[in-house]
Amino acid sequence: MDPDAVAKAFVEHYYRTFDNNRAELGNLYQEGSMLTFEGAKTQGSQAIVAKLAGLPFQQCLHNISTVDCQPSGPGGGMLVFVSGSLQLAGEQHALKFSQMFHLIPTPQGSFYVLNDIFRLNYA
Amino acid sequence: MDPDAVAKAFVEHYYRTFDNNRAELGNLYQEGSMLTFEGAKTQGSQAIVAKLAGLPFQQCLHNISTVDCQPSGPGGGMLVFVSGSLQLAGEQHALKFSQMFHLIPTPQGSFYVLNDIFRLNYA
Repeated sequence: MDPDAVAKAFVEHYYRTFDNNRAELGNLYQEGSMLTFEGAKTQGSQAIVAKLAGLPFQQCLHNISTVDCQPSGPGGGMLVFVSGSLQLAGEQHALKFSQMFHLIPTPQGSFYVLNDIFRLNYA
Repeated sequence: MDPDAVAKAFVEHYYRTFDNNRAELGNLYQEGSMLTFEGAKTQGSQAIVAKLAGLPFQQCLHNISTVDCQPSGPGGGMLVFVSGSLQLAGEQHALKFSQMFHLIPTPQGSFYVLNDIFRLNYA
């Protein structure tokens, strides 16, 4: 499968899950996974999901503007770079964000997220 | 050395070089290096420098807002995620951007850029 198509499918799956049920994102991370969310560092699937589930909003909707991807080295990993906007329930203006994921192949032929860095882009 | 300090030093060096003499950036890339600049893909040190040197502005100044970094796996690599703004000579408004670098250690104890993805954040 074309890497750009894989990246796009991952991104669609990730944000659909985030917007519908953040707790299910745990399946995408493993124990060595790292999240840096607005500068705050978290490690491990359980802690990452706790961080994401505890963000101070209930409903949100991600709109994706761009998805770029590159192979990350000989191990078959993939870097995915996303820009988009995030609409929070009850807020008038959407927030711009950028996020990168480092995806690592699993023995089952899928990917997990080793690295995840998220930043809002303040206007 | 602390990874955050290494990332910050790299980022300062990278943008200082970019703003002073883009042609010198070639030392930071190798043949396998990849650049995706606003969705356009380029590979290899020489092609990447040609792309950067050929951007349609002469003078620019990067201002860095945030630098996040994470180790990228067992090989000693490092992911660096930058947000900031870019002031072009003669333009009234600075442009917001986000950029990520995947740095790989060299035998000489330094790093080179394997992956580089750049996006402007349109308001």
